[in-house]
Amino acid sequence: MGASIKDVAQRAGVSVTSVSRVLNGEKYISKELLEKVNRAIEELNYSPSHIARSLKAQKTNIIGIIVPDLTNHFCSTILSSIEETASAKGYNLLVGNIAENMEKELKYLHIFQTMRVDGIIVMHQKFDERILAFFENAAMPILFSSIKAPSSAHLSVMVDDYQAAFDATEHLIRSGHTKIAFFGGDLQDITSGLNRYRGYLEAMKQHRIVPDERFVKFGDYKLPSGRRLMDEILQLDEWPTVVFAASDDMAVGALNCALDRGVRVPEEISIIGFDGSAITEVVRPSITSMEQPVEELGRKSIEYLHQLIVNPEFTFDGDIVLGHRLVERESSRARR
Amino acid sequence: MGASIKDVAQRAGVSVTSVSRVLNGEKYISKELLEKVNRAIEELNYSPSHIARSLKAQKTNIIGIIVPDLTNHFCSTILSSIEETASAKGYNLLVGNIAENMEKELKYLHIFQTMRVDGIIVMHQKFDERILAFFENAAMPILFSSIKAPSSAHLSVMVDDYQAAFDATEHLIRSGHTKIAFFGGDLQDITSGLNRYRGYLEAMKQHRIVPDERFVKFGDYKLPSGRRLMDEILQLDEWPTVVFAASDDMAVGALNCALDRGVRVPEEISIIGFDGSAITEVVRPSITSMEQPVEELGRKSIEYLHQLIVNPEFTFDGDIVLGHRLVERESSRARR
Repeated sequence: MGASIKDVAQRAGVSVTSVSRVLNGEKYISKELLEKVNRAIEELNYSPSHIARSLKAQKTNIIGIIVPDLTNHFCSTILSSIEETASAKGYNLLVGNIAENMEKELKYLHIFQTMRVDGIIVMHQKFDERILAFFENAAMPILFSSIKAPSSAHLSVMVDDYQAAFDATEHLIRSGHTKIAFFGGDLQDITSGLNRYRGYLEAMKQHRIVPDERFVKFGDYKLPSGRRLMDEILQLDEWPTVVFAASDDMAVGALNCALDRGVRVPEEISIIGFDGSAITEVVRPSITSMEQPVEELGRKSIEYLHQLIVNPEFTFDGDIVLGHRLVERESSRARR
Repeated sequence: MGASIKDVAQRAGVSVTSVSRVLNGEKYISKELLEKVNRAIEELNYSPSHIARSLKAQKTNIIGIIVPDLTNHFCSTILSSIEETASAKGYNLLVGNIAENMEKELKYLHIFQTMRVDGIIVMHQKFDERILAFFENAAMPILFSSIKAPSSAHLSVMVDDYQAAFDATEHLIRSGHTKIAFFGGDLQDITSGLNRYRGYLEAMKQHRIVPDERFVKFGDYKLPSGRRLMDEILQLDEWPTVVFAASDDMAVGALNCALDRGVRVPEEISIIGFDGSAITEVVRPSITSMEQPVEELGRKSIEYLHQLIVNPEFTFDGDIVLGHRLVERESSRARR
């Protein structure tokens, strides 16, 4: 650890305020003070990064946000909701788009640290040890939005992905579907990969339906992977009656594949997505989706992060779990 | 204008390197040098922001980017292309989403300045005087991507919006359309508002077609405005045979309005957009669009900004104008 501004003050025999006045280059400073402080800085080898840092010990009103992929419609949807509340509270958001790359994530986290952002929101999940160590040691609050925090030391604002996938699957079963295909994400993603898959499996199990393994496939949440998986499904002798995709973008990919092959949705096959992205209402037929409360998720992420920033006493006990909701649109129908 | 590090050096009668050694708090600095420099700083009222600035004279490898609206599909499409090249050149992008708000734009520009980003890319157009003054006085290179720079002092990488709109309109005329509706943007936006409108008007004029004023409408480039304008069109006694929207998002809004009212596209009415956003291939029917070369636009924006950053001798003569291209998809057809 290098010297702090306090050390400089002590060494120079002056107050911290005086040191900071010198560092800030204020106008009316006695030559004596200037020399004392500069001598102390010299003797302590007080480093430029410390000087830069002391220059902005105050709040920066900047929140850094790590997003996995800006072309993902859920990301852009939730980002615009976060932006709105952040703005209302006087924060500026700086977005680091990591394009699913952990090296980039680490770089952005370090940039945010150097900038002394007031807080960080992470919307990406799948961390290596270096990133986990950063979270552990970070000087500023970090909040996980729409994903599970890697440890209980950090707050998550999210839905219960397991329960939401369970409810979506159960809803399909109760509407008469038994041949339910599932397009999942990366199982190493606890939140949106593993938990959504587990929810699907458990609902099937509780209703004593054995999933047809030809109907259970995994992609990367993106549109082309939904298209590719649907293409595989439509080449089978027998089709599922519904495809439940673990992201809206995969659902749109599945929809496009079906439409382009002349398969009618929902008449021949229903499709439902997960997330509540704006894209569900852009395409035709519009897409039924197990929705996260996007507006609330964005708002609460900023509200809680703001608490963590301004109130060091603020404590929490577990995640902030928001309600999920199946929104039925044109892409799905009951079987009876 | 405040004093520069050069002024300080001159006043102190020492080299710029010596001043920067003092500012960087280096260890072995003679008391004499220290006093000279500090006296010059005092006398010149050299400000803290200048000190902070000099402290990181080295490259930060950060590029700040001002985007108008992340939910705009053209923005996210081009951003992901910019991201790719930036990343390959070792830059990290920090995105400031201004949500069409000039106060925010100014804040982000100041944040980027404080952070000493290596360069700034601006994708938003419609500047007030404070923003123009910032551009004028900025310490780092600023490049305008997909929009016209406000002065020739700055470089633009863009298409010729006027010519592109002219060509799109002429293409429609040559395919037998005469009742050509135009959904424009904000005419205060020179690039995408005024120039696209002018291109449309000029093509109509050259082909001696008088635009039906009921068919010429203005929105805000966003999907809901395309939907609203189309709704007005479909309530007329007589319809145009094609709608040319000045953004792909407005074209998608127009498409959805038509489909939801049971109007067949392109059988009853054709729709074409402008931009080359990924959304044109997501919706069905897919959307014909006068496309900007998105990949090239992103790549060249970074390549030229990189030149401006690393090579102070780099000069340019006018804008970098890239080719546009009409990509025909399912939403439009010829009239003969």
